[in-house]
Amino acid sequence: MNDLRSSYKTIRQHSEAICKPLKTEDYVVQPVADVSPPKWHLGHTTWFFETFLLKPYAKDYQEFDPAFNFVFNSYYESVGARVIRTDRGNLSRPTVDEVYSYRRYVDDAMDVFLSNELSPEIEAVVILGFNHEQQHQELLYTDIKYILGHNPLLPAYDDKGIENIAVEQNESWISIEEGVYEMGFAGDGFCFDNELQRHKVYLQPYHICNRLVTNAAYLQFINAGGYNNFRYWHAEGWEWVKNRKVIAPLYWFLINDEWHYYTLSGLQKIDPQQPVTHINYFEATAFAAWKGARLPTEAEWEVAATKFVWGQRWEWTESAYLPYPDFSKAEGAIGEYNGKFMVNQMVLRGASVATPEGHSRITYRNFFQTHLQWQFTGIRLAR
Amino acid sequence: MNDLRSSYKTIRQHSEAICKPLKTEDYVVQPVADVSPPKWHLGHTTWFFETFLLKPYAKDYQEFDPAFNFVFNSYYESVGARVIRTDRGNLSRPTVDEVYSYRRYVDDAMDVFLSNELSPEIEAVVILGFNHEQQHQELLYTDIKYILGHNPLLPAYDDKGIENIAVEQNESWISIEEGVYEMGFAGDGFCFDNELQRHKVYLQPYHICNRLVTNAAYLQFINAGGYNNFRYWHAEGWEWVKNRKVIAPLYWFLINDEWHYYTLSGLQKIDPQQPVTHINYFEATAFAAWKGARLPTEAEWEVAATKFVWGQRWEWTESAYLPYPDFSKAEGAIGEYNGKFMVNQMVLRGASVATPEGHSRITYRNFFQTHLQWQFTGIRLAR
Amino acid sequence: MNDLRSSYKTIRQHSEAICKPLKTEDYVVQPVADVSPPKWHLGHTTWFFETFLLKPYAKDYQEFDPAFNFVFNSYYESVGARVIRTDRGNLSRPTVDEVYSYRRYVDDAMDVFLSNELSPEIEAVVILGFNHEQQHQELLYTDIKYILGHNPLLPAYDDKGIENIAVEQNESWISIEEGVYEMGFAGDGFCFDNELQRHKVYLQPYHICNRLVTNAAYLQFINAGGYNNFRYWHAEGWEWVKNRKVIAPLYWFLINDEWHYYTLSGLQKIDPQQPVTHINYFEATAFAAWKGARLPTEAEWEVAATKFVWGQRWEWTESAYLPYPDFSKAEGAIGEYNGKFMVNQMVLRGASVATPEGHSRITYRNFFQTHLQWQFTGIRLAR
Amino acid sequence: MNDLRSSYKTIRQHSEAICKPLKTEDYVVQPVADVSPPKWHLGHTTWFFETFLLKPYAKDYQEFDPAFNFVFNSYYESVGARVIRTDRGNLSRPTVDEVYSYRRYVDDAMDVFLSNELSPEIEAVVILGFNHEQQHQELLYTDIKYILGHNPLLPAYDDKGIENIAVEQNESWISIEEGVYEMGFAGDGFCFDNELQRHKVYLQPYHICNRLVTNAAYLQFINAGGYNNFRYWHAEGWEWVKNRKVIAPLYWFLINDEWHYYTLSGLQKIDPQQPVTHINYFEATAFAAWKGARLPTEAEWEVAATKFVWGQRWEWTESAYLPYPDFSKAEGAIGEYNGKFMVNQMVLRGASVATPEGHSRITYRNFFQTHLQWQFTGIRLAR
Repeated sequence: MNDLRSSYKTIRQHSEAICKPLKTEDYVVQPVADVSPPKWHLGHTTWFFETFLLKPYAKDYQEFDPAFNFVFNSYYESVGARVIRTDRGNLSRPTVDEVYSYRRYVDDAMDVFLSNELSPEIEAVVILGFNHEQQHQELLYTDIKYILGHNPLLPAYDDKGIENIAVEQNESWISIEEGVYEMGFAGDGFCFDNELQRHKVYLQPYHICNRLVTNAAYLQFINAGGYNNFRYWHAEGWEWVKNRKVIAPLYWFLINDEWHYYTLSGLQKIDPQQPVTHINYFEATAFAAWKGARLPTEAEWEVAATKFVWGQRWEWTESAYLPYPDFSKAEGAIGEYNGKFMVNQMVLRGASVATPEGHSRITYRNFFQTHLQWQFTGIRLAR
Repeated sequence: MNDLRSSYKTIRQHSEAICKPLKTEDYVVQPVADVSPPKWHLGHTTWFFETFLLKPYAKDYQEFDPAFNFVFNSYYESVGARVIRTDRGNLSRPTVDEVYSYRRYVDDAMDVFLSNELSPEIEAVVILGFNHEQQHQELLYTDIKYILGHNPLLPAYDDKGIENIAVEQNESWISIEEGVYEMGFAGDGFCFDNELQRHKVYLQPYHICNRLVTNAAYLQFINAGGYNNFRYWHAEGWEWVKNRKVIAPLYWFLINDEWHYYTLSGLQKIDPQQPVTHINYFEATAFAAWKGARLPTEAEWEVAATKFVWGQRWEWTESAYLPYPDFSKAEGAIGEYNGKFMVNQMVLRGASVATPEGHSRITYRNFFQTHLQWQFTGIRLAR
Repeated sequence: MNDLRSSYKTIRQHSEAICKPLKTEDYVVQPVADVSPPKWHLGHTTWFFETFLLKPYAKDYQEFDPAFNFVFNSYYESVGARVIRTDRGNLSRPTVDEVYSYRRYVDDAMDVFLSNELSPEIEAVVILGFNHEQQHQELLYTDIKYILGHNPLLPAYDDKGIENIAVEQNESWISIEEGVYEMGFAGDGFCFDNELQRHKVYLQPYHICNRLVTNAAYLQFINAGGYNNFRYWHAEGWEWVKNRKVIAPLYWFLINDEWHYYTLSGLQKIDPQQPVTHINYFEATAFAAWKGARLPTEAEWEVAATKFVWGQRWEWTESAYLPYPDFSKAEGAIGEYNGKFMVNQMVLRGASVATPEGHSRITYRNFFQTHLQWQFTGIRLAR
Repeated sequence: MNDLRSSYKTIRQHSEAICKPLKTEDYVVQPVADVSPPKWHLGHTTWFFETFLLKPYAKDYQEFDPAFNFVFNSYYESVGARVIRTDRGNLSRPTVDEVYSYRRYVDDAMDVFLSNELSPEIEAVVILGFNHEQQHQELLYTDIKYILGHNPLLPAYDDKGIENIAVEQNESWISIEEGVYEMGFAGDGFCFDNELQRHKVYLQPYHICNRLVTNAAYLQFINAGGYNNFRYWHAEGWEWVKNRKVIAPLYWFLINDEWHYYTLSGLQKIDPQQPVTHINYFEATAFAAWKGARLPTEAEWEVAATKFVWGQRWEWTESAYLPYPDFSKAEGAIGEYNGKFMVNQMVLRGASVATPEGHSRITYRNFFQTHLQWQFTGIRLAR
């Protein structure tokens, strides 16, 4: 079995392994627009291989079902009409069984397809498909957590406690000297177009913390009235706090005067040593302001990241998601992958407990809108 | 087996029979606020028996799951907090299997409970529970149709074609003389509180049509530009037409210049002889205005209804849903059943193909808001 | 001077007299969609005479400004496009001076026009124009009150205290026997099309109160927790209370634990003897439910109205605004006057302190949506 | 007269001079949330001097009217409650005359106050007040244009044609070498806190156009279907185009197949030589993408700005509005001036025809949200 065939199998099986603990009903619902039903993720990642590889390049390939293009297209304007995003949770059909049949069908065709010699261009799309599916594996975790964590019965996903991580016991600050540094991807492996081109940046001297902000520290912010004092907040963040009556991170519940949080393993008491999670950009910057610190820029983060442990929480940076110098979009639908989202979002760096192994890297640029909390996000401070 | 036990079984089984053709996924979704997930209907009707009979009156009854009260309460303010209506489709748990277990559990307890001698007051609540479940049986049909009929795959529910009915071939008009008539329920059987008290009304002379408006007649209205001419519409109806860009009844699709409609048996060409269905009050009155006619009042309908065939489409009337003289609400939660909805809704009379046998009667008052189309509604004209 | 010319002058001058105490700025704003800027009322009533009389029938009449049709059309679809209702307060031009010039111009032309012999059809439109302007005179008062009463400076309109009225000292109940009665307009004078045809109704025996509910009585309802108890409210009314956090009628302010209200003469302590005012249908029915009473139907009101004093508050009835038997719309734009609003509104009977003398009558049907409070509305109970 | 007294007078008179051509009614309306009524600007700038100088520092100063704090506070949470922004256009009072009286009163007190010796801290607030008023002078122009340009009568503001500017006849491209450059304010004069600190940046080699994009060039984009092709747009921009059905810049009207635009001097045919104006960030980037170019970053702009003529259109950059290294907020209410808006906005550089003389500078950072068009914005391309 060649490498691509083997990687294909491994990656595809991981998506299904993530869904193993689910009930059929859990695959279907969409409590908010940003959270897609798990069966949609399973279908959409399959549609990606069918649409961008099998249909254009695989000899004699028969489309599984023409209606699925409409159902499983996410946002590619180039490839036709699609179910609007907020309607995904309204679709009881195709059923979960049908989606798995779709996966089987496409997997079989891909296995044959990947046995052939592929041009470098086509191989690049295959590898993009792998990375695309890995991104949806992360979303499977975060969306499943949202679906179960917003159900009044608060059911656990499994009992493995994957959210708990080893944490640095002692806080220290890493100092970086001012000067010209390089950032962005270089080398032979895969990267997303948004990591290019590698380029020079000038950094002022700065300090960056060796570890993430803990629940204990964040509780101090809450107890100090952080959610009641406009001074720490962006004007837009303050509106969000007031309109939504926010008093704590997502998934936190105050039960008999004691803070709990919902985790994938169910409701638990807050562990003060663990990094605070599920805070949005507004909360991250408000906490930093209260501390008299700030978030690092993504350049600062990337330059210093060899000097600290990272990778189990996405870390908000103070950088807007914008193109690097000489960024250019690919032609065709693949060109819609990243560039068109480069507005009104902030960059996150690192990786999370939900990120598949081998998917992230030091130059990886994740990005979300400033009000979103449902990813496994954390805070690293800089000065 | 006594009558109540036997009726209980028959009625409860009918709800489950309606759901037989569904896939698990079909039980879960809620495409719009007015449409509840089928599993919610199954759970809510069960909750009714548990809440208003077993918990207060059944000796040693152990509640199935205290959390279910929150999940399956519909609108009874008296019995605690509830999932807001628009969130019902966001709940993957309890699963369909759990809901059926809940039904089994309550059915077993009810079977024991109904074996006992019951006071007349309690027996009245049992019978209200029967009628309540029958109302949700009708909603199961209309909500299932909405769920499947708004899925891009347009799957059929079954192949029985239950929507097609025998229709009068010839149109004629029934004349009623002016005078004092009586309306409202009288007698021994069950009726809803909104059908009381029986009272006198004075009617002017009028004519009422022997049959419902057909698809053929409604197509003439469409082809005559009925949806483009404000003159036929209430101001609020005209806003609805323009904002929603409505051009035909719900479930109608123009495919290759030919009108089709989605039925519970799938997509079909319009049958011109069948009564037009799934029109709202605005459409019903606009059609009538175009015809130079009007809708009957509910009094006119009730007085004349012995003279024509009715019962397979709910018929919009020109009467607002308001209390009859000497209407009074029951005490407690049961009192929330009807009275609090007596504002900004219109009365429908008759019954539909989805109405369980024996549930409706000549004095029955159904009611919906003026913009709603998803019930099996039709038009009978008066002059 | 003939009667029409003289009536025209009197009525037109009254509109301007109402606006006399206003500052230029007060003529311009529109704090909510239902409240129109006073200059819009002055322009729109003028546009009515120009559009329906001068342009079609006055020889050699030159339109004042063709753009004004767009600005001052209210809802007449027959006579072209119009500024959407919510945008009226965004228009600084035409200025107040220009609107008064428009009035002068049309008044001069009307004076000539009314000097001629008119056909009965045209005379009917003239008289409709008078009544139309009188309706807007009432709206001028209510809209001015809303504009000034929602300004944080709470400026008084004048010091005449027009809202205070003589009230019956003693409460008593009038009994009406059951039987067939007549209602609706008959006779030679003017009436709106919605008051026709006079027709018979059968009434059950009932009692109706000789006087309106007082502020003192309504305060008891407030103090008894009326706004906190869902049992008294329609489901839709209860949503309104909770969403808007309503705790008292419109214009009521709790200042240092004492209830005040804003009147056209400024902020004052609540006068307990005066009738409660500015309550909507939901509040009126909730109060009645709390009292163990109900609102009268419009038929009950009309039949009994010779036996009590009415006319300084519009009285909510329990009747939906629907056509009388044999109601028919006029042809053309005039036909849009009433019929198209006959849905989802409730009938009010009587008249208010803002109603011009001679405008109302015992058969007059006013109507508003159930959530609206800004009219001078009150409550009369029935049983 | 000392310098501050003289500057105060000049600046204050300029605000009133801008309003000179207005009718009273024009001072009052607020057609959309982002546009404030001119009288609000006049009052708010006055409130700034009263609140941050006279009340805390002027001996024996008597506040003009305590209620004005509520009316004229814009967004300073530190200084109390305020009229919500969308309600400014609902206030007919205080009248325009009263606002001018307020200005007179505060101007007199300020004249006395400025005759005294001031501490450097207080002098800094005075100068901030000058710059603050100048910013509102620009908004007066843009808001007046919006108010008149959205009136169906399209009245002119004056006949001076201030929007037309001298334009470079020939397009050329300026090349900047890669390297370390400095940006940000340095020196003695006034700057806003957001221009600090001056710091080094590393720039890749780039080219920047000597002139702004013309109407002629933008028309080519329109005619090439630029508003119909998703490829040129950010995903969020494309939503904006589709939802709002945008087909051209703000104030453009297609009349008899010929493009016109509303200017402060009224409706005119498009002048192809003038720079395209009133485009938002989405439009600016879509145009650039269609041209195979991009917008400059603010660093690129600032470094090259000595080599081209700028200053009559605000130029969108591809930089998000974020703090410079070592940015810090001032204490107290003044600290709310800039920092809390540093999220989800883009930087504009230069100045516009509406910017008061002497107000802008090469380091000046203006900022708006990406969908806003009502400022005098333009496009300069980079590569």
